[in-house]
Amino acid sequence: MKFDVIITISLKSGMLNPEARAIQHALSNLGFETEYLKTADVFEIGLDASDIGSAQKKAEEMCERLLANPVIHSYSVEVK
Amino acid sequence: MKFDVIITISLKSGMLNPEARAIQHALSNLGFETEYLKTADVFEIGLDASDIGSAQKKAEEMCERLLANPVIHSYSVEVK
Repeated sequence: MKFDVIITISLKSGMLNPEARAIQHALSNLGFETEYLKTADVFEIGLDASDIGSAQKKAEEMCERLLANPVIHSYSVEVK
Repeated sequence: MKFDVIITISLKSGMLNPEARAIQHALSNLGFETEYLKTADVFEIGLDASDIGSAQKKAEEMCERLLANPVIHSYSVEVK
């Protein structure tokens, strides 16, 4: 069966996020004041699995082995 | 009033996405076959605005002026 999986990967809270600080600074230079700014990477993946549980498991494995660095990243998997 | 805004920026369809192809290739080397893989950047921003409409408008302006390249990117704004 075909499944569409949405994986969201973001830095763990407390981790320094220089990319976000730089964007926040640039926005402020353009006149946009922001209270906070967080960034995340989203992957939308089409994959084949026997059921929704194994699709979820497969996506989590993809995160553990490649997409996320378990030391600094947290990830969430949503199977549609 | 404080608003939380979620901005999602992705490549327009039809645009070549070398990052996605490279990840798809790496996943395949690890034994994960995928039908398709798309990437997107998500920004979660806390901002001050008089109402939900002006928060939406402010976020769209941020995209137009800094966060998105209108030639290759499409963006969506969700005010929570």
